[in-house]
Amino acid sequence: MRARTGQMWMATLAWRGTAYAGWQIQPNAPTIQGTVEQAVAAMCGLDEPVPVSATGRTDAGVHAEMQVVGFRLPVDRTPHQVMSGINFHTPADITCLAAQTMADDFSPRRWTKGKLYRYRILNRLPRCPFRDDLVWHLKSPLNVGAMSAAIAALVGQHDFSSFRAAGCSADTTVRTIRAARCQTTDDGEVLIEFEGPGFLRHQVRIMVGTLVDVGLGKRSAGEVASTLSAQDRAAAGPTAPAKGLTLVHVEVGDGPRLL
Amino acid sequence: MRARTGQMWMATLAWRGTAYAGWQIQPNAPTIQGTVEQAVAAMCGLDEPVPVSATGRTDAGVHAEMQVVGFRLPVDRTPHQVMSGINFHTPADITCLAAQTMADDFSPRRWTKGKLYRYRILNRLPRCPFRDDLVWHLKSPLNVGAMSAAIAALVGQHDFSSFRAAGCSADTTVRTIRAARCQTTDDGEVLIEFEGPGFLRHQVRIMVGTLVDVGLGKRSAGEVASTLSAQDRAAAGPTAPAKGLTLVHVEVGDGPRLL
Repeated sequence: MRARTGQMWMATLAWRGTAYAGWQIQPNAPTIQGTVEQAVAAMCGLDEPVPVSATGRTDAGVHAEMQVVGFRLPVDRTPHQVMSGINFHTPADITCLAAQTMADDFSPRRWTKGKLYRYRILNRLPRCPFRDDLVWHLKSPLNVGAMSAAIAALVGQHDFSSFRAAGCSADTTVRTIRAARCQTTDDGEVLIEFEGPGFLRHQVRIMVGTLVDVGLGKRSAGEVASTLSAQDRAAAGPTAPAKGLTLVHVEVGDGPRLL
Repeated sequence: MRARTGQMWMATLAWRGTAYAGWQIQPNAPTIQGTVEQAVAAMCGLDEPVPVSATGRTDAGVHAEMQVVGFRLPVDRTPHQVMSGINFHTPADITCLAAQTMADDFSPRRWTKGKLYRYRILNRLPRCPFRDDLVWHLKSPLNVGAMSAAIAALVGQHDFSSFRAAGCSADTTVRTIRAARCQTTDDGEVLIEFEGPGFLRHQVRIMVGTLVDVGLGKRSAGEVASTLSAQDRAAAGPTAPAKGLTLVHVEVGDGPRLL
């Protein structure tokens, strides 16, 4: 059954962020949003890009195993046509995994209930030719036990002023982290994951940079709680490189979330 | 302890083969061998490339999670210096994982006891932005049960004439496959693995192409035995694309193998 004209759609995307200046459209730089908007338009045979919105922005170089986007199509299409049409008109580093019709008031940002971010650190001497633009390569051995102890202080509802980028314009700096973990893999990686309804600009990367300080012995595990209470960006560690960060999962509800 | 001048070395390499015309040096094309020989020379402060030999050739676009190479160094170096020196002078898609000194008669080709090749097929509708140059993307669902049944006929010592490239110049077409398996993963892939002391040119890729014919229903599982006995390249299936193939492991003994 074809969807009616003017139908609201949801699409699930994945991308390798290496070649892009992040999600949001900007002049004179390739962006995920700009590339997808042109692909959706081309799929519909339109000259003008079709506006596509996401659950939030991602930085230049950040990857997505799953991001949810929404758009209104002025032409009838089946879910299979939308998925394969976007894939036909996007380069190999952006993929549409699925598409479905949605209620008329669907908004990816407002309907998002949770996001899972994963940060990958390759923690061994030699780099890896298969993961070079997907991990932060750190040769010095990390104390993952200390990092795991430190990460607990970040879970819960807190004022994350210490962990936001200078240019962040969020109304409130209070955010909730529902779950966080730090663990090693059998192929030389340290994974750091955060799950919650939303994050401040650079929040995950600054939390990772601070935890790496702990892992390198530059600050104690106990210091992370005082870094949080300092409410001062200067108290936290450096911003970890974007290329190690992946948006792994987005949970979308059946209506706007209550804020 | 530094190794003596003129010392024979073994290095373990990994590479993403996408940008290279295969292992073997050739004029006017980037090769793994050429790149590594220049890196070894640069590490030693020499103008002339240092000859580097591998356990065998790999095709253009084929990857290696582990390949073993040998070379003789005219200068003293520690294992750590050799590893980090090669990594300093190679691009990010070639990595030295380890280095060690070897007996004077070490030859990667003659000392190799076994090789494990893995072929990755992404068998789902959408492509994957993180695996595009590491898998063969096949949208039609494969019958993995039939492929698993068919693969058994290839195990053992056989004349693999049907499964070698037209230009293959091997003295004998008899090879032994010690183990083979075909299985699915939970992220949409069909993996096909072959282990044995050595393979003919394109042998793994032609075996995969023939098994994919079985998986697509173009030939029966039982036909693989008659394809083998035909001793005719035309009897086998197409050569699977190079980019799905990875040399996963090389087993090196403590001396030349008995042929």
